[in-house]
Amino acid sequence: MKKRIYIYSPSSAVRNKAGLRRAVARLKALGHEVELDPDVLASHMRFAGDDEARLAAIGRAAASGADIAIVSRGGYGLSRLLPRLPYEALAKAVKGGTRFVGYSDFTALQNALLAETGAITWSGAAAAEDFGGEGDPDDIMQDCFEDLVSGQGEGTGWQLARSDTFDEPLQARGVLWGGNLAMIASLVGTPWLPKVKGGILFLEDVSEHPYRIERMLTQLLYAGVLARQKAIVLGHFNNWMPVPHDKGYKLKTVVDWLREQVEVPVLTGLPFGHVPTKVCLPVGAKVTLAAEGRDVFLLWGHLGPHDHHHDDGHEH
Amino acid sequence: MKKRIYIYSPSSAVRNKAGLRRAVARLKALGHEVELDPDVLASHMRFAGDDEARLAAIGRAAASGADIAIVSRGGYGLSRLLPRLPYEALAKAVKGGTRFVGYSDFTALQNALLAETGAITWSGAAAAEDFGGEGDPDDIMQDCFEDLVSGQGEGTGWQLARSDTFDEPLQARGVLWGGNLAMIASLVGTPWLPKVKGGILFLEDVSEHPYRIERMLTQLLYAGVLARQKAIVLGHFNNWMPVPHDKGYKLKTVVDWLREQVEVPVLTGLPFGHVPTKVCLPVGAKVTLAAEGRDVFLLWGHLGPHDHHHDDGHEH
Repeated sequence: MKKRIYIYSPSSAVRNKAGLRRAVARLKALGHEVELDPDVLASHMRFAGDDEARLAAIGRAAASGADIAIVSRGGYGLSRLLPRLPYEALAKAVKGGTRFVGYSDFTALQNALLAETGAITWSGAAAAEDFGGEGDPDDIMQDCFEDLVSGQGEGTGWQLARSDTFDEPLQARGVLWGGNLAMIASLVGTPWLPKVKGGILFLEDVSEHPYRIERMLTQLLYAGVLARQKAIVLGHFNNWMPVPHDKGYKLKTVVDWLREQVEVPVLTGLPFGHVPTKVCLPVGAKVTLAAEGRDVFLLWGHLGPHDHHHDDGHEH
Repeated sequence: MKKRIYIYSPSSAVRNKAGLRRAVARLKALGHEVELDPDVLASHMRFAGDDEARLAAIGRAAASGADIAIVSRGGYGLSRLLPRLPYEALAKAVKGGTRFVGYSDFTALQNALLAETGAITWSGAAAAEDFGGEGDPDDIMQDCFEDLVSGQGEGTGWQLARSDTFDEPLQARGVLWGGNLAMIASLVGTPWLPKVKGGILFLEDVSEHPYRIERMLTQLLYAGVLARQKAIVLGHFNNWMPVPHDKGYKLKTVVDWLREQVEVPVLTGLPFGHVPTKVCLPVGAKVTLAAEGRDVFLLWGHLGPHDHHHDDGHEH
C-alpha cells in the first residue's frame, strides 16, 4: 500500500524551491504519495508565513492523517510558537499513526511535545534539505527514512573513534530525547524542557564554535540535566571556523571537559546532525544503548502508534 | 589621594599586549596607581590561564584591596568557573570598598555574585578594550569610569529614538541587573540566575543575528523572567550581518515582537554594549528609572560599600 507523506513548513521559509520540487519527485519515485501543505512555500520575512500561518500549517499536518509528516526544512521559527502549539492535536495524530520527522529547529517542537504529552516524534531528515540536493540523497539517510516510512526500523548502530572505545561494556535503558543543542539549551528553565530522568540525551549542532557549544553545555550541566541522564550521545558539531585565538582549544577540548564534569558516559560519533548521513531517532521512546569496544547500538524495537513516554518511566 | 586600579584576566587571554600597555599608561596618566595581576597576560588555549590560574587571579583581585578591580577584557571563560568562584571573598571585597567592573563575559560573574551574595558590581569598561585603543578613549566611557573611580557617579541618562518616546511618563524603582544577553540566557535554569522580582533588566549583545537575540529572549520570556521585571532596557545589539533570507526581519522586528509579548515597558538606546560609548551601571543596586518623552534617567544615588541587594527587596 502506498504510504502518504505530508510536507509542511513550520520554521523558516523555503528559498530553494527547485530543491523542494526535487524532494517531491524523489519521494514519489520511492513509491510514496506526497502531499504539500498549501503554505509549504509561504514566506513572511525569514519565516514560512507569519506565526498564525505556521501554526495553521502545523495543525494541518496533525490533521492530515498521513503516515509521515516531514518538515520542508529547519531554520528558525518554532521557539516563538511554543506557547501556542496544538499539542493535543499532535499527540492525537501520533496515536493515529502519523510519524512526525525533522531536525534542527524542529527539536523545539519535538521536545516540547514530549514535555507536554509524552508523544514520540522522530529526529531525522527534512524534505528539501535531505531529498532536495542536486546529487543523490545519502544512502544511509534514505534507508533510515524508508525504514521509518514502512515502520520497520528498530534501531541503529555506529562505530566509535578508536580513542573513544569502551573497555567495559556499557548498557543503559532510558528515554531517548534531545536533538539540536542550541534548541535544547534554549528550553532550559522553561515549561518545555522534558523532565526526563535516567534518559539517553543526544545532541548535535552546526556553525557553533566549540566555546559556544561548551557554554550551552554548562547550562545543561548547571541545571542538573546532564547528571540525571544515563548517557549523553554526541552527534556531529560541524561547520565552525577555528580562529588563531583558539591556540589548541577545539571540539575535543570540550568533549574532554564534559567528561570531567559528569560521571555519565559521553559517547561520540552518532550519525546525526547537520550532515548528509543522518539516521532516524525516536524522541521520547524507551531505548537500549549498548556499547562495547568500538561498537554502539541504539535499539528501540518495534514502536507502535500507542507507545509514548510517561513521567513514571514506564512504556504504555 | 591616588586611587588604586587592579587589572586581572578572568576570561579570555589578552592577545593585544600593546593595547594593555596603552591602557596602563592612560590610567596612570589619569592619576591612578595601576597594578597588574601577575597572570594578566597568561595564556592557556583561548583562556587567560587554565581554570585554576583564572580562579587564583580572581581571588587576588578580591584580596587586592584596590579601589577598582577591572577586567582586562571579556571573551569566554567565566561560565566554566561558576561553581568554584570565590563568592564570599568577592562580596567581602565589595564591602571593603573595591568596585569590580567589566562587561560581556564578566556578566556571568556579576549576576552569579548577585545571586549568591547580593553584592553590587559594575557593568562598564574593560581595561584593554576600552582604554587600550590606538585612538583616544571614548569621552563618555572615560567620564563614567572616572566617576566610578572617584565614587561620584549617581546615575546616567540618554535620549530615546523618536519612534520610542513615552507619552505617559514612566517611573519605576527596582534592582538593576543583567548585562550580556547570551550570558544571562545561559544562566536561566541554573543556580546563578539572580531571582530579581520587580527589577530593571538591561541587556546588550554583539555579533548575534536578531533571530538569535529573539531566541534568547524567548528563553527569558518562557522562564517568566521578563514578566517579573518592572522594565526591560536594551543597549546596543551590534556587529551582526543581515542576510538576504531575512527579507525585512531585523532588530526592530524583535523589539516589536518583544513588546507584544510583555506588558513590561521595553526601553531602547541605553548607551551600553560592545561599543566605545558605554556608561557604568551598578548590577544589583536599587535604581530609579524615569522616562518622559525622549528622555530617560537611570538613577542610583550615592552607593557606599555597604549597599547591596537582598531578596527582601530592601536596601541595607
